Amino acid sequence: MPTLSPEAALAQLQWRYATKKFDPARKIPAEVWSVLEQALVLSPSSTGLQPWKFVVVTDPEVRKKLQPAAYNQAQIVDASHLVVFCAKSPPTLPDAERHVERTAAVRGVPMESLGGFRKMVVGLATRAAAEGSAWAARQTYIALGIFLATAAMIGVDACPMEGFDPPKFDEILGLKEKGVTSVTLATAGYRSADDSYALLAKVRFPVDDVIERV
Amino acid sequence: MPTLSPEAALAQLQWRYATKKFDPARKIPAEVWSVLEQALVLSPSSTGLQPWKFVVVTDPEVRKKLQPAAYNQAQIVDASHLVVFCAKSPPTLPDAERHVERTAAVRGVPMESLGGFRKMVVGLATRAAAEGSAWAARQTYIALGIFLATAAMIGVDACPMEGFDPPKFDEILGLKEKGVTSVTLATAGYRSADDSYALLAKVRFPVDDVIERV
Repeated sequence: MPTLSPEAALAQLQWRYATKKFDPARKIPAEVWSVLEQALVLSPSSTGLQPWKFVVVTDPEVRKKLQPAAYNQAQIVDASHLVVFCAKSPPTLPDAERHVERTAAVRGVPMESLGGFRKMVVGLATRAAAEGSAWAARQTYIALGIFLATAAMIGVDACPMEGFDPPKFDEILGLKEKGVTSVTLATAGYRSADDSYALLAKVRFPVDDVIERV
Repeated sequence: MPTLSPEAALAQLQWRYATKKFDPARKIPAEVWSVLEQALVLSPSSTGLQPWKFVVVTDPEVRKKLQPAAYNQAQIVDASHLVVFCAKSPPTLPDAERHVERTAAVRGVPMESLGGFRKMVVGLATRAAAEGSAWAARQTYIALGIFLATAAMIGVDACPMEGFDPPKFDEILGLKEKGVTSVTLATAGYRSADDSYALLAKVRFPVDDVIERV
C-alpha cells in the first residue's frame, strides 16, 4: 500500500498554510480535482448521515458576485476552486430514512436487518433537528479538515475561510431552496510565488498547552 | 517534495473506515504517534486562535473508567490511543491576547505591528465567547478531520466517535478546571484482522446529491 511515510506527511502539514495569494493562472487539473471532490464525498460523519452539501464554484461571474460577501478577499476570485461547505438546515427524518435505504441498497441487505442501525440514525437526526443546523454544521468541519489535509498531502494549496456573510452566500447561491445553509469555505489552487504569508513561521501554542497526556 | 499521488491519496481515503474492532496487541510506534500529535497541533483554526485542547489517553485504568461513559464501546479500551477533542468553554479575551503575543514572539515582530491582526482576533474571541463553546466546538472538528485524513495517509486506522457522555468525560478527566469541555473523540491504532466492518461497502449518497457544481 503506497502510503506516505509519517515524516513526509508531517512535512506536508508544515508546507500547508492558509494561502492568501493564489496564482490565478494555475488551475487544478481535472483528475487532481476529482480526487479532492471524492475526499469531500468520502468524509466521515456521525452514523454516516452526511448532513451536508458541497457547492463547488468555478464560474468566474458567480465568484465575482460572492467576493463582496467575503470581505472582498482575493482568494474568492483568484483560487482555482471555491468550495462552499453547507449544512442541512436542519437534517430531517426523511434524510435519515434515505440514508438507511441507501445503506440497504449499497450493501445488498434487507431493510429489516437494519433495525438497530435505523433506530440510531433516526434518533440522531431527531436530536439534530431539534437543535437546528448546529450538529450538521459541526459535521461539515470534519469534511473541511479532510479536504485540507488531503490537499496538503497531494501538494495542492488551500485556504479555509470563515470570513464571509453566510446569509448573502445562501441568497446568491440559492441555498435556502435546497434545504442547506453555508457554513464555511475553502479555496484551493496553487500559491502565488510572491505570497509573503508562505514564508511566515507557523504560530502555535507550545505543545504542552495544547496536548495533555493521561 | 515527496507528496502522495492523487490516486494513492484516494486509495487511502477508501481504505479508511470507522474501525470498530482494533487489535489490542498492536500499539502505534512512538515516532508514528508523534506525527499524529503534531497533526493535531498544526491543525488550522480561524485566525489561528486554537480554541482547543487534545487529551491523549493511554492509561488503561483511565480508559476503563471512560468506557461506560461511551456506551461501553470496545474501541475505548482496545485502540492504541484515545484522543478527546476539547473546546475552550468559551474562548476568552486573555486567550486572544496570548495568541497575539505568541504571534509577535514566534515571528519576531513588535506587538505594535500587529494592530489589525489583534483587532480581528479579539473580535472573533469576543463573538465566540458570546455564543459559548459552539464556535470553538466547530473548530475542534477541523482538527478531527485533519487527524483522520493524516492517519489514513500514513496507514493508521482510526474511529471518530460522538457516542459518549461529554459531562461524564469532563468529570473523569477533570476538564472543567482546565476551562475546556469534551466535544468529540477519535480512537487510533490498527484494525483487528476479524473486524467485519472493514469489508463493508462504503455508504455514500450519489455524488450529484452531495456535490453541486456552479
